[in-house]
Amino acid sequence: MKRIFEIDPWKVVTHEFKPEEKRLQESMTSIGNEYMGMRGMFEETYSGDTHKGIYLGGVWYPDKTRVGWWKNGYPEYFGKVINAVDFTKVDIKLNGSSVDLAKDEFSDFELALDMKKGILNRSFIVAKDGQKFRLNFERFVSVAQKELYASKITVENLSDTEASVEIRSYIDADVFNEDANYDEKFWNVLAQNVAETHMSLTAQTIPNNFGTPQFTTEMLADHVTDLRPMAAETTEKSVINTFAGQIAAGQTVTFEKRVIVVTSRDHETQAALTQAAQTLSQKQAESSFEELKVAQAAGWAKRWEKADVEISGNAESQQGIRFNLFQLFSTYYGDDARLNIGPKGFTGEKYGGATYWDTEAFAVPLYLALADESVTKNLLKYRYDQLAGAYHNAQQQGLKGALYPMVTFNGIECHNEWEITFEEIHRNGTIAYAIYNYTRYTGDEEYATHNGFDVLVGIARFWADRVHYSKRKGQYMIHGVTGPNEYENNVNNNWYTNMLAKWCLNYANEIADKVSAQKLAQLDLGETERQKWHEIADNMYLPQDQELGIFVQHDTFLDKDLTPVKDLPAGQLPLNQNWSWDKILRSPYIKQADVLQGIYYFVEDFTPEQKEKNFDFYEPLTVHESSLSPSIHSVLAADLHKEDKAFEMYSRTARLDLDNYNNDTEDGLHITSMTGSWLAIVQGFAGMRVIDGELEFAPFLPKEWDDYKFRINFRGRLLSIEVDKEGSKIELLKGEPLKIKLNGEETKLAAK
Amino acid sequence: MKRIFEIDPWKVVTHEFKPEEKRLQESMTSIGNEYMGMRGMFEETYSGDTHKGIYLGGVWYPDKTRVGWWKNGYPEYFGKVINAVDFTKVDIKLNGSSVDLAKDEFSDFELALDMKKGILNRSFIVAKDGQKFRLNFERFVSVAQKELYASKITVENLSDTEASVEIRSYIDADVFNEDANYDEKFWNVLAQNVAETHMSLTAQTIPNNFGTPQFTTEMLADHVTDLRPMAAETTEKSVINTFAGQIAAGQTVTFEKRVIVVTSRDHETQAALTQAAQTLSQKQAESSFEELKVAQAAGWAKRWEKADVEISGNAESQQGIRFNLFQLFSTYYGDDARLNIGPKGFTGEKYGGATYWDTEAFAVPLYLALADESVTKNLLKYRYDQLAGAYHNAQQQGLKGALYPMVTFNGIECHNEWEITFEEIHRNGTIAYAIYNYTRYTGDEEYATHNGFDVLVGIARFWADRVHYSKRKGQYMIHGVTGPNEYENNVNNNWYTNMLAKWCLNYANEIADKVSAQKLAQLDLGETERQKWHEIADNMYLPQDQELGIFVQHDTFLDKDLTPVKDLPAGQLPLNQNWSWDKILRSPYIKQADVLQGIYYFVEDFTPEQKEKNFDFYEPLTVHESSLSPSIHSVLAADLHKEDKAFEMYSRTARLDLDNYNNDTEDGLHITSMTGSWLAIVQGFAGMRVIDGELEFAPFLPKEWDDYKFRINFRGRLLSIEVDKEGSKIELLKGEPLKIKLNGEETKLAAK
Repeated sequence: MKRIFEIDPWKVVTHEFKPEEKRLQESMTSIGNEYMGMRGMFEETYSGDTHKGIYLGGVWYPDKTRVGWWKNGYPEYFGKVINAVDFTKVDIKLNGSSVDLAKDEFSDFELALDMKKGILNRSFIVAKDGQKFRLNFERFVSVAQKELYASKITVENLSDTEASVEIRSYIDADVFNEDANYDEKFWNVLAQNVAETHMSLTAQTIPNNFGTPQFTTEMLADHVTDLRPMAAETTEKSVINTFAGQIAAGQTVTFEKRVIVVTSRDHETQAALTQAAQTLSQKQAESSFEELKVAQAAGWAKRWEKADVEISGNAESQQGIRFNLFQLFSTYYGDDARLNIGPKGFTGEKYGGATYWDTEAFAVPLYLALADESVTKNLLKYRYDQLAGAYHNAQQQGLKGALYPMVTFNGIECHNEWEITFEEIHRNGTIAYAIYNYTRYTGDEEYATHNGFDVLVGIARFWADRVHYSKRKGQYMIHGVTGPNEYENNVNNNWYTNMLAKWCLNYANEIADKVSAQKLAQLDLGETERQKWHEIADNMYLPQDQELGIFVQHDTFLDKDLTPVKDLPAGQLPLNQNWSWDKILRSPYIKQADVLQGIYYFVEDFTPEQKEKNFDFYEPLTVHESSLSPSIHSVLAADLHKEDKAFEMYSRTARLDLDNYNNDTEDGLHITSMTGSWLAIVQGFAGMRVIDGELEFAPFLPKEWDDYKFRINFRGRLLSIEVDKEGSKIELLKGEPLKIKLNGEETKLAAK
Repeated sequence: MKRIFEIDPWKVVTHEFKPEEKRLQESMTSIGNEYMGMRGMFEETYSGDTHKGIYLGGVWYPDKTRVGWWKNGYPEYFGKVINAVDFTKVDIKLNGSSVDLAKDEFSDFELALDMKKGILNRSFIVAKDGQKFRLNFERFVSVAQKELYASKITVENLSDTEASVEIRSYIDADVFNEDANYDEKFWNVLAQNVAETHMSLTAQTIPNNFGTPQFTTEMLADHVTDLRPMAAETTEKSVINTFAGQIAAGQTVTFEKRVIVVTSRDHETQAALTQAAQTLSQKQAESSFEELKVAQAAGWAKRWEKADVEISGNAESQQGIRFNLFQLFSTYYGDDARLNIGPKGFTGEKYGGATYWDTEAFAVPLYLALADESVTKNLLKYRYDQLAGAYHNAQQQGLKGALYPMVTFNGIECHNEWEITFEEIHRNGTIAYAIYNYTRYTGDEEYATHNGFDVLVGIARFWADRVHYSKRKGQYMIHGVTGPNEYENNVNNNWYTNMLAKWCLNYANEIADKVSAQKLAQLDLGETERQKWHEIADNMYLPQDQELGIFVQHDTFLDKDLTPVKDLPAGQLPLNQNWSWDKILRSPYIKQADVLQGIYYFVEDFTPEQKEKNFDFYEPLTVHESSLSPSIHSVLAADLHKEDKAFEMYSRTARLDLDNYNNDTEDGLHITSMTGSWLAIVQGFAGMRVIDGELEFAPFLPKEWDDYKFRINFRGRLLSIEVDKEGSKIELLKGEPLKIKLNGEETKLAAK
C-alpha cells in the first residue's frame, strides 16, 4: 500500500511531487469523457521519467502477434488502443529557459483532480534566473462537447522586475506505444496547417495486413492568450505555434489552448474531418473558458445526481467510492455503442485497452443501477454487433456456434496465451448472463427475444459442441478449461464453467419459448437441436463433494494440499511475485472467486447452507490477487451476515488504486475493478437484489461507518437509500410508485 | 512424404536441383565432425532462397528471452548455437560474370553426399557468355583433424576458346541467425589479416548480460590453386583473397581452400588462438588434398567397422539406416565431454542446438552399443559437470535438489513455455535412467557410485520435495506435470512421471548402499532422508484401471472421448497442422509414447499381459507426431511378437528425413530421432536386451527383408549379428569369449 494523495471527499489532491512517483501520479490524475482521455502527464516539458498517454476511444491498431512458441489457432494480431497524436504539449520558456520540474527548483506544488467538476488543476512556484513565477494549469476533456480538450495556463511574475515568457504549443504525431510488439510508431502524418494562433494536423494509423480499419484523426488547436504570436512552424511530424511577451512585476499572463479532436470513426472523408473540426472549433470559440468550465461542471453534476454515494464517518471510504465512480464514468458513459470499457480505460497501455468479460460481469450491474437503461443496452448491442467475430473464434477452434473473445475490438479474439485464449471459455457464459441481468433488472424482454436471442443461440450452440460425453461417467463434461481462477490452467470440469454452460443452454431454451416462429426459423433452430440442449443440460456433470457439502472447483481439486492461506509462511504473498508459476498452479490458492463467482451470479438460487459451506471452504484458500476478487466475496459475506468479513473485503477494493494496493497502479488504473466497491456497498451492505421483478434490500451498517446513502435508477424511478445507526430509509425521488421489499417485508414507495 | 534424393546404399544423391527444394536439400546434405558442421548450402554465390548455416560445437549465445506473456520463473535467456563466421564462401566469375544457379542456365547437375567417406560432392555444367564449363565441388570437415575444413573446386572449360576465371574467397563475419530474438548479429570482428594466398579473421561473440562466456574464433584460410593471386582485401567484417587466370579450351583449373578453425573453447588467449591456427595450418599443408581425403575416408571406415548395419532386400531401408548413423556420428562422436547432441545437430537453427533429454532417452543406448564406453561416459559426465545448474533450476521453482533442464548449454534452463519448462519434469528421471542404463550395459559401477551418485542424490532430492501428500488418497502425488505426450499439458499424476520418480528414489537408495561412508557424509545423506525416500516410493500413487488392466496416463484420461485414431474423419492428420491447440489438448491423442515409454525403459519388469494390454490400449490413440514416437512402439511391438506392427513403426522412423515425412526437414534434420531406426532393428527386430549382465537376443526377420546384419560393442567385445530366412547367427569378432542368450537359450561365443 502506498498513499500519495490526501484524503478529501471530492478531490484527489497532493502537495508533493516526487519524480519517482510520477507515473503513479499520472495514472491517478487521469481524465476522460468516453470519447477520449489521458493520463495526468504534465503539458509542459518534463525531462524525467514519464508515461505520456492520450487515447481516443475505439482508435486502435492490430499489432502483429509476437509470441515465443506459436500454438495452432493463435490470433494473427493483438489489437491495442494506440497513443494518440499529442495535442497537449507545450514548452514554456521563462527568461529563455524551459520550465522543467525534473531540473528546476520549485515550491508550493499542488496537484488536484476535482471529481465533482471533472477538472484537473496544477500549480507551483518556480525559480528562473533569480526570479520566481507562479504557474497554474487547468485542463479537462469536455462532457458537454466530446471533441473538446481545453487547457489554461496562467503565469504570474512574483518578482519585482519584468520577465520574458515564450510558449511553444505543439500538435505532435511523433509518439509511440511502450507496448508496441515491434517498436513501430503507429501514426503517419497526412496534412499539416499552421497559422498565427491556430494549427491543425491530420494523421492516419499505418497500414496493416489484417483488413482492420485505418483510422484518421484531425486535431485542430486554437489559442487565446495575452501573448503575441511569434512563429508558425511545421516539422516532419508536428505543427507548432509560438507566442511570446513580457510580464511586468506582479503581473499575470494567461494562455488557453482549445483543441478539437475528430476522427474517421465519425466522419468518412478527410474533407469531412476538416469541416467538422472547423465547425466545432467556431462553436467553442463563442464561449469563454469560464463558460466551458461551467458546462463541464454541469455535465458532471447531472451524473453525480443519479449516482453519488455518501459515506459518513469514514473519509477514506468517501473519497474511494467517488474516485471509482469518477474514473468509471470517465471511461464509459454509454454514449457510443461501438465502445466498451477497457480494463485500464484511458489511463495506461496495459491490456491494450480492449474489451474483456469484466464488462459484463462487473460493470453491467453498476451501469444498470446508475445510468439510463440505454447505457447497458449499448453494452449489449456491442456484443450483438460483434457476433460474427464470435462465430469466427469458435470456428478457429473447430467448434460450432459463437465464442466471445477474451480480448477484442471487433469481436475477433486478440489474446494469445493458450490457457486463456482457448481455455478461459467461461467468458461466453457471462455474455449470456448479462442479457439475463439486463432483462431481470429492466423488465424489458425485447432485447432477449430479438437481437439478444441471436447471441444466446450462438453461445448455446458453442456449449453444445464444446461438451463431450464421458461413457465412464454417463454424463456430459467440459475438459481443458481455465476458470475465473487463473491460478489453475487446463483443468477438467470446472464447476463454474459447467454450471454456466448448463445455465446458458437452459436460458436459451427458455427464451426460445418466447420468440417468434419467424425468429426461430431465421436462426434455423428446431426441436431436435433444442432437445439436445435439454439433454446436455440435464446430464451435465457438476462436481460436488457430499461429505464437505461443497461444489468442487474441478475434478482433482480435493487431492491438493489444502493448507489455508493464513498458514502460509511469512513473505510468500503475493504469490504472483514470490512463487514460480508451476508452484502457483499446483497450489490450492485461488486468484479470484471461481465457485463463488457462480454462487454470486445466482445467489438467490442456493440455500444458505450451500452458500456458507462453499464460502467457508473457498474463501480461506483465496489470495485475492485479482482486483476483481474482493468485491464478490464482500457481497457473499454480507449475504451470509458475515459483516466483518464483508467490510474487510470491501476495504480491499474501495481504495485499490488510491492506495496502490497491488503496486502496479503506475501502469494505469484498474477501471473495471472500480465497480467492486459499489457492488460491495449496494449488493453487499445494502443487500440489493431484483427477484421476480421486485427490488429487495436487506441493509446493514458497517460498524466503521456512521451512515451511508446511495441512489439507484430502477425502471424509470430514482431511489435514495440511506442506512444509519437507526436503521434504513428508502425514498422514491422520482417516478411512479413502486413496491419493494425491505428486510423481507413488502413496502410501497411513492415520490413526495 | 517427399523424396528428393535417389536410393543408393552409401550415398545421398540427386541429379536434380529445384530452387523451391533448396533448403530441404541443404538439410539433407549437411556434414559435421562433432567439432563443427554445416548445412549443404552452396559455397559460391546463390541469389535465391537459401539457409546458410555453419555451426561450431559449443559456441553459443544467450539470447535474451522474448515471450508474449511473462510467467514467474522463466529463464532470462534462450541459449542458441549461433551461425559461425562463414569460411566457405567464394564467388566464381567466368568471363566476368558470377556463377549463380538461381540465374544461370545449367545442366548435368549432381549432388552427392558420400556417407562411407564423409565427403560432399557437387558438379554441374554452366553456360556463361556462350561458353560452357563443368564445375565440380568437393568438401568435408575432417574427422582426422577436427579443426580442418577442406574444399576443392575444379573448373573445366568445355568450349573451344579460352575463357577467364576469377575466384574471390571470403572469410565473412557478417552473418546472422534466422531465429535471433532481437535481430542482432552476434559477431564482432577483433582482427583481420590478409596476404597473397592466405588470410585470417578473428571474431568474438557480442557481450551479454548473463555472465556466460564470450567465445572467440579464429579462421585461417590457405589456398592452393593454378590461378594467380590478384588482390588481398579487408572490409568491415570480412577478409577476401582474389585469384584469377585464363583457362584454355578443354583445360581445367583447380582451387583448394583449406580452413583451420580454432576457438577460445580450446585456447585461452587470442595469441594462443593465432599460434594454434598457424601450427595446424602448416601441418595440414604437408598433405595433398588427396591425402587429406584418404585420412577422412579412413576415419569414417573405422566408425563404420564398429557400427554398420547391412540390410538386404530393401534398398530404401539400407540407405535409411546408414544416413541416420552418418548424421548422428557427424553430430556427436564423444570426443568432447563439453558437447552434447542437439536435436538438429549442425543442420539447422531450430531448437537452438542445445541439449535435450533426447540424448539420454534415445541416443545413449545407441552409443553404448556402437562406440567406445568412453563416449557414453562423456555424455554422463556432461550432466555431472552441469549439476550446479540443475540445483539452480530447482531453486528457481522453489524446490530442493536438482532439476535437469529441458534445454541447456550450461545446465541452466533456457526453455520458456511454462507447460514444458516448469512441468515436463519427467526429464529428470531419464537423466538417472541413463546412469542405470550405462551401468547395466557396461557392468561398470564406478560412475554410479562416485560422480554419478551426486547426480542421483540431486534428482532424488528433487522428487522428494516435488511430490505432495494427498490426505484424501493417503498417497503421494505429483500434480501439474506434462508427460512425454506433449499433447496434454498440466495433468495430474502422469503414470510415467510418477513411476519414474518412484524408481529414481529407489535407485538412489539402492546405489547409496554401495557408496562409501565418506561419499554419504560428503552429500550429507543420512538415514532419515533415505527413509523418507523409501516412504515416498512405497506410497507413490500410480493410476491404474483394474477393469481395463492398464496403467492410466493421468488422473482423468479415461473420461475422454476415446475414439481411436483410425476412426477420425479424413483430413484431420497431422493434428498439429489441422486442430487448434485446445482441441488437441482435450483429445485422447498421444504425440509420442507416454505410458509405453515407461514400459519400454523397464521392459523386462512387466508381464506380457501388462505389456499387451497397455500397448493395445494406447497405440491406437497415438498419432506419432513426434519423430521420437514410432521407434519405441516398434521395439514394444516386436517384444509382443506383433511383427507387422513393429515393421510399420520402423518404417516411419527409418527414412524420416530422407523422405521428409514430417514436412519440416528443411529446418534441419531430426538428429536425436535418427537413433530410432537402429533401436527398432536392434532392440526391436533382434530383441537385444541386457539382463543381469548378460546379452540376450530374440531375433525375427521382417518379411519385407531378405537379411540384416549389424555389429555391437559389448564390454570390450565386437559382435556381429546376422538374421536371415534361415535363422540368426551371432559371431564374436573381437575380444574375450562370452555367454549370451539367443532365443532364451544360453550360448557361449568365442572369437575365431
